[in-house]
Amino acid sequence: MRAGISVRFLAVIAAAWWTTAVHAYDLDNGNAAIEVVIPAVLPVAFSDVSPTGGDATLILRTTTLITNAWFDATAPYHPTAVGVYSRLGRRPAGESATNRNLNIALMHASYQVLNSLLPRHRQAWRDMLTGAGLDPDDTGTDLTTPVGIGNVAGQAVAQGRLHDGMNQLGDEGGRNYNPMPYMDYTGYAPVNTAYDLKDPSHWQPDLQRQGVGLYKIQQFVTPQYALTEPYSYRNPKRYHVPPPKASDHHHRALYRQQADAVLQASAELDDQRKMMAELFDNKILGLGFSAVYAALSQGLSLREFIELDFLTNMASYDAGVVVWQEKRNYDAVRPFSAIRYLYGNDPVTAWGGPGMGTVNDLPASEWKSYLEEADHPEYPSASTCFCMAHSQAARLYLGSDNLNWTVSQPAGSSRVEPGITPATDIELVFPTWTEFAADCGQSRVWAGVHFPAAIEASEQLCGVFGDTAYDYLATLLDGSAPERPPAEGLGQGGRGHGHRGRGRH
Amino acid sequence: MRAGISVRFLAVIAAAWWTTAVHAYDLDNGNAAIEVVIPAVLPVAFSDVSPTGGDATLILRTTTLITNAWFDATAPYHPTAVGVYSRLGRRPAGESATNRNLNIALMHASYQVLNSLLPRHRQAWRDMLTGAGLDPDDTGTDLTTPVGIGNVAGQAVAQGRLHDGMNQLGDEGGRNYNPMPYMDYTGYAPVNTAYDLKDPSHWQPDLQRQGVGLYKIQQFVTPQYALTEPYSYRNPKRYHVPPPKASDHHHRALYRQQADAVLQASAELDDQRKMMAELFDNKILGLGFSAVYAALSQGLSLREFIELDFLTNMASYDAGVVVWQEKRNYDAVRPFSAIRYLYGNDPVTAWGGPGMGTVNDLPASEWKSYLEEADHPEYPSASTCFCMAHSQAARLYLGSDNLNWTVSQPAGSSRVEPGITPATDIELVFPTWTEFAADCGQSRVWAGVHFPAAIEASEQLCGVFGDTAYDYLATLLDGSAPERPPAEGLGQGGRGHGHRGRGRH
Repeated sequence: MRAGISVRFLAVIAAAWWTTAVHAYDLDNGNAAIEVVIPAVLPVAFSDVSPTGGDATLILRTTTLITNAWFDATAPYHPTAVGVYSRLGRRPAGESATNRNLNIALMHASYQVLNSLLPRHRQAWRDMLTGAGLDPDDTGTDLTTPVGIGNVAGQAVAQGRLHDGMNQLGDEGGRNYNPMPYMDYTGYAPVNTAYDLKDPSHWQPDLQRQGVGLYKIQQFVTPQYALTEPYSYRNPKRYHVPPPKASDHHHRALYRQQADAVLQASAELDDQRKMMAELFDNKILGLGFSAVYAALSQGLSLREFIELDFLTNMASYDAGVVVWQEKRNYDAVRPFSAIRYLYGNDPVTAWGGPGMGTVNDLPASEWKSYLEEADHPEYPSASTCFCMAHSQAARLYLGSDNLNWTVSQPAGSSRVEPGITPATDIELVFPTWTEFAADCGQSRVWAGVHFPAAIEASEQLCGVFGDTAYDYLATLLDGSAPERPPAEGLGQGGRGHGHRGRGRH
Repeated sequence: MRAGISVRFLAVIAAAWWTTAVHAYDLDNGNAAIEVVIPAVLPVAFSDVSPTGGDATLILRTTTLITNAWFDATAPYHPTAVGVYSRLGRRPAGESATNRNLNIALMHASYQVLNSLLPRHRQAWRDMLTGAGLDPDDTGTDLTTPVGIGNVAGQAVAQGRLHDGMNQLGDEGGRNYNPMPYMDYTGYAPVNTAYDLKDPSHWQPDLQRQGVGLYKIQQFVTPQYALTEPYSYRNPKRYHVPPPKASDHHHRALYRQQADAVLQASAELDDQRKMMAELFDNKILGLGFSAVYAALSQGLSLREFIELDFLTNMASYDAGVVVWQEKRNYDAVRPFSAIRYLYGNDPVTAWGGPGMGTVNDLPASEWKSYLEEADHPEYPSASTCFCMAHSQAARLYLGSDNLNWTVSQPAGSSRVEPGITPATDIELVFPTWTEFAADCGQSRVWAGVHFPAAIEASEQLCGVFGDTAYDYLATLLDGSAPERPPAEGLGQGGRGHGHRGRGRH
């Protein structure tokens, strides 16, 4: 798996180097968000945030804060817009005649946010600015300059989300030493262990291989996401999915039926579905690049790209708060546990592992999902919810369902079956956002990490977060959004070092 | 942590490239084991076997099989030696007038073993050979040629250890699909979970951070090492350590005393001890490079280096079998659990985390060991045992206790406290193998991962594995070693696919 990522790394690093080192960066005509910031962030995201791009909560918080910083830093150059976390006045229209000032402001804002989010990579963020001809040591705060606007806007976003409930600093619960960033502070513990499925209705952490021969056990990633302040609505408790009835093993027939549906999907895997599963598993390539593609193919301006990219990230991020609330509430079993529990060593027909194709004598206990399960309970599907929110937001902003994205998948480029899948060069085609979201959802069943009900639940619920995010963006754009205090967690008690009141916008 | 490794990577890769690409490799005068094979293996060892070099069982099995291949492939060029897993006849003395044939044979043997151990990195192993002017596609088995000798000897080692009990193929227990290499097949399960210390005498898997915000729970790495066939003795059950009396929490005063000893060592950490702890934690840099240094500084020939390096690896590897037997048997608690259990949130005086120095108001529940604990129960100390066996083996082979190894540690080069520790350039000095092993052992208490009794137990026991390994090497060198069938696990039942008889040398 790592090999695939590494090749991507090298390509990205080479591209960034080419852009920023060989040519002087074109501030007037370039899109520094796409051409400077994203290439700088990608290698760190894969090396230090999520090796597969599949750890959605950490990836999404990173990308949402960065795009928020872009938005807030360029708001003064818009006729009416205001930032989420700053009100920096308005610059004369002449200052946005080219992209120069917007690019300078967004890069300085990115620098501030990245130093807050990923402080161990300070040198990479310095290089990002110097590579584009900017000075990381220019910490000016003059709000008549793009450097000052960028610095102030970026710092405000970093500060605004520092204690949003996700425990970025690792100090929640009053921890003073040895901070544990993003660590759970809500006391979640699974009812099952990796060794023993005590209750077959509930989530079991899986043993997953790392490298040649290390095995590690999953821990529910950021259960406190359920207590994190959303951008575009106040109360996550307004949103719910129906209980996952078939995951209750007392409903034996339903329980078996949904497990059989996953086995059948596993047996029917083909190259198209395998590559689809891999694309959507990687939140940077699936979610992130779809927005970049839409912006480039539809000729969006720099400002419009920033609006779309912040919007879609915010929609997904806000969707995630409710998904985590529901995941935590139902704590539902993943297919691998249910299949082992139901069938033990009995033979089943399913995908037999990398390079094996579909086999009909697979002991159920040896079945594996095509993708490794992410570190959280099964129900509802987070990926589906992100894709639904993202697609709805994009549809509203772009005024059309049309996407027309084609993703080429060269023969053998699979991360799970390298050198084998796909057998020939193939293309994944997404004519519309509706089809993009539908394939995204189904791909989680094909991948074996979800039951169909988890996809249906997210499909039913999650468009609304595209709506709320779009509505909130509209108030930011027309300047009517009320001023917003720093975000804070929604939980009881909160941090030991003095919990502020609950006032929010 | 990853940054430190990466820098080391680049240096190693650059060195290997310089050696093998810029200059045509000097087969007659070079030492390809040190100059070609080790630089090729290091980056893969850190990227895919053990990110810190601290996962000793996986690292040691890799290095032991490689050095075994070197030994077996060069035995035909020795006047009397025989291989562990092959008997390939004797070559005329003239063929070892220079290092050429030995180098060719050992590189081809390495290629065979590496393709068996780390098959996903086939391209790296091909590049290793081509970089030195050899042809990886030359699979000849003509035993009058160094290529044939290397290929046959390497394949025999790979086959000889394929089912040695470590579950390299991931098929133990009769698993037919989705192999899980090096996965436990003995049914070990901890009595405690990461969330709940049910029995304070026993091992608790820890929650460990990976990257920015992922947390994973430890699983006992390769419990089946206890059932793996050693090289140099038959029956691990002959060797034991005394029970870890103070780890039984019913002996409350002793239990507290040994926890306090770890806290005191933590409070007394200085730059010298921190860097010592880091050096010995990395089995490649601590164990591996000490042998390379001894060989280079004492002017060993290529053949002598191979003998020393195989000997010290074998001694450690064989020591590990007993250590894992005893670790599994006692399943003893690590200091972090005991300290939390004893003192809860009460303040203690100890190292307060990276960059914090020693603090006197550290809630015991927030204490962390300077190094992360490895993935196995505490007692006895594996690192100490490896160092004792390694040192005794080296002492016997070299005929002296002298080592005179100085390891430079530039200011800020710490992996745990990068940019901070050591405050100035320092040197770690090991005048003798005795002092090397003593510092190695104590460094595990300084690092906070062991109680003193675990070090004492290994110090008492483990020299003997240097003796047994040296004795076995002597029989290989004089040709008296009996022919050896492929190794197999020592457990009951074993693999489902037909367990062979128990005949061993």
